[in-house]
Amino acid sequence: MPSPEFFQVLPVADALALFDQHWQPQPPAETIATASALDRILAADVHSPEQVPAFRKSTVDGYAVRGSDTFGASQSLPAFLRLRGELRMGEAPRDDIDAGEALLIHTGGMLPASADAVVMLEHAQTINEGEIEILRAAAPGENVIQAGEDVAAGALVLPRRHRLRPQDIGGLLAVGIHEVEALSRPRVGILSCGDELAPPEASLRPGMVRDINAYTLSALAEKHGAAPLRLGIAADAIEDYRQRAQAGFAACDILLLSAGSSVSARDYTRDVINGLGEPGVLQHGLATKPGKPTIIAVCEKKPVIGLPGNPVSALLVARQLLPHLIGRYLGRRPEPPATKKARLSQRVASVTGREDWLPVKLTRADDGETLAQPVFGKSNLIFTLIDADGLLRVPLNTGGYESGSIVDIERI
Amino acid sequence: MPSPEFFQVLPVADALALFDQHWQPQPPAETIATASALDRILAADVHSPEQVPAFRKSTVDGYAVRGSDTFGASQSLPAFLRLRGELRMGEAPRDDIDAGEALLIHTGGMLPASADAVVMLEHAQTINEGEIEILRAAAPGENVIQAGEDVAAGALVLPRRHRLRPQDIGGLLAVGIHEVEALSRPRVGILSCGDELAPPEASLRPGMVRDINAYTLSALAEKHGAAPLRLGIAADAIEDYRQRAQAGFAACDILLLSAGSSVSARDYTRDVINGLGEPGVLQHGLATKPGKPTIIAVCEKKPVIGLPGNPVSALLVARQLLPHLIGRYLGRRPEPPATKKARLSQRVASVTGREDWLPVKLTRADDGETLAQPVFGKSNLIFTLIDADGLLRVPLNTGGYESGSIVDIERI
Repeated sequence: MPSPEFFQVLPVADALALFDQHWQPQPPAETIATASALDRILAADVHSPEQVPAFRKSTVDGYAVRGSDTFGASQSLPAFLRLRGELRMGEAPRDDIDAGEALLIHTGGMLPASADAVVMLEHAQTINEGEIEILRAAAPGENVIQAGEDVAAGALVLPRRHRLRPQDIGGLLAVGIHEVEALSRPRVGILSCGDELAPPEASLRPGMVRDINAYTLSALAEKHGAAPLRLGIAADAIEDYRQRAQAGFAACDILLLSAGSSVSARDYTRDVINGLGEPGVLQHGLATKPGKPTIIAVCEKKPVIGLPGNPVSALLVARQLLPHLIGRYLGRRPEPPATKKARLSQRVASVTGREDWLPVKLTRADDGETLAQPVFGKSNLIFTLIDADGLLRVPLNTGGYESGSIVDIERI
Repeated sequence: MPSPEFFQVLPVADALALFDQHWQPQPPAETIATASALDRILAADVHSPEQVPAFRKSTVDGYAVRGSDTFGASQSLPAFLRLRGELRMGEAPRDDIDAGEALLIHTGGMLPASADAVVMLEHAQTINEGEIEILRAAAPGENVIQAGEDVAAGALVLPRRHRLRPQDIGGLLAVGIHEVEALSRPRVGILSCGDELAPPEASLRPGMVRDINAYTLSALAEKHGAAPLRLGIAADAIEDYRQRAQAGFAACDILLLSAGSSVSARDYTRDVINGLGEPGVLQHGLATKPGKPTIIAVCEKKPVIGLPGNPVSALLVARQLLPHLIGRYLGRRPEPPATKKARLSQRVASVTGREDWLPVKLTRADDGETLAQPVFGKSNLIFTLIDADGLLRVPLNTGGYESGSIVDIERI
């Protein structure tokens, strides 16, 4: 049995910089329906094929007029105009108005060619069927949106690398763009290795456990906008592990290997990664707990991470690395995790030179303050994370926190 | 043409309370695969059908022993044990160990029945093929996780109304639960009304505009965990509007009506809603801008909102109401929107007694500070929201903010 691994650990920020240095992703684009493009990233700048509004329209319910016909009009000295009827919504005016004429129009209605202003309903009154009084002058342009005032034809609507929000989907559809070129979601392949692992639906023989890393890591990838690809379970034998890793690697953009807990599976991972292509393993060991034995690699222009087999370690280290990789693939900085201020319920000790991540449970004290209570557990199994509401990060060069400290808790 | 609407406006918080008072949702549950259940809400408490770990396992690479056989062992006075071989990962020990025996075991490996501790590799050394020296005593239980130590059989794994996170999916699968009862997502029906509206893919006749509210509101519903249901466009005629609203209402859990900009469509909405059932319209008019003419209703135990036709107004008022309704349906408080502190670039005036929502663009000043620049636009069309990075809320009883004020900006 080989001796335990010894390696020089690297801070996580430096590991991310290593990826950046060796990996310049060139994500392909795909055409998707604008209506289904929420949260997708634009592959290219989008320009408007048409102007919005497409026609001059009224911003109020009122009378479309030539402004000059209303000049000087007031309560005491109204202007008299002939009414040309009412314009139905969704229709273009059949006729233009002549001098001294008005057209009843609704909010959003299209102005006749010679009209240049709209008098609000409350500033006019009907005298008889065909005649109205205007009680206040309307300057040309008043209560009118000009054609193209919102967006000119050819104008930049949204820039490349923009993530589509509800209003963006509306804006694209408003200018008639019902398909967009979006960046493909990165395919995140996840391969577990270990003879003790069984798929979750299998019945377990004594000595075996269910492979849950494939599922926690899939969910993490999905949450951050990637397309997970579960690659199954490799046997704890170098050839099977190598073959499955190579087949999966070809089908994905980012590969996560979650090595089983046996010494041999841990040892194989490094060789398997180096076999995937140049430059291979860049770093073995991160200055983070849990997650120390993590492997950072780039092979044939794709990032590869060798994660610990322990489900808590695998998930906690993946959440420090994967959002950065997905963001880099999509050309965007990842959203910083949501945090909450809390008072630490007890002293937390840590070793300097290592970043610690401690699961905590958040509770509300009688005085309304939020308390963070560390969730300890020697088992280091997934249930410490299920009981937790957040994580306390103890930075590299901190010896810990005193009881009662106000700390930032990252929601998990 | 009817006169403009006059109504007593109600603060948004009071409108939400009205919904709560008249609407006690009873969402149905559905069975879904745990692996696909990210962000879904549990319909019922989940208890573990089995214990985890299923067997006593080692937390280290080392030798499974009877602790009593190692008592008093030290570097200078080692304990000698007979080696019973190596246990492969994923297998149960074929034989038990006798007194004075040890079994080589990996991290996660299953202990033989009589072993009660594991000596780490580095605290032992091989003498010859079949014999080892133990250099440090191991207390019973040392480096061992007991069966059921992580979760006992029958224990509560996750409570009802819990939203599933990546680690929760892992925990459920770890105990063999590969299907869960999740609350159905609320179906949010969206019906637009107006003769001027055309579907986005149609070519436009002069005087017509594309119906984008159905799409911005769909995306908003989707973003907050609901299932949107676009119900098309009703003609600006009471019978068509009524029929489409009734058919859509039957198929959804929450109904949004987005009335076109004509006076008649606006007037019809109230009648159409009252025709959907008791108690009908609860409030017409909110103390918010944009969004004042919003209608709040509950009909036959379902909430109904009559939204303004203007796309900016419809989206900005829906984001104040819909997340609350979706959260109430799912039995959860909605997540508060992400905010960012920024310095206001100019004075913003407001009217007291009304909550104002002002789109702002965030920029970074030379000194690194975040500046919020209001996005003005008389057009009130969707592009003011596309240009914006966030919204400034001017509360009910505030007259506005001075230039240079530090304000909270909600990300949109």
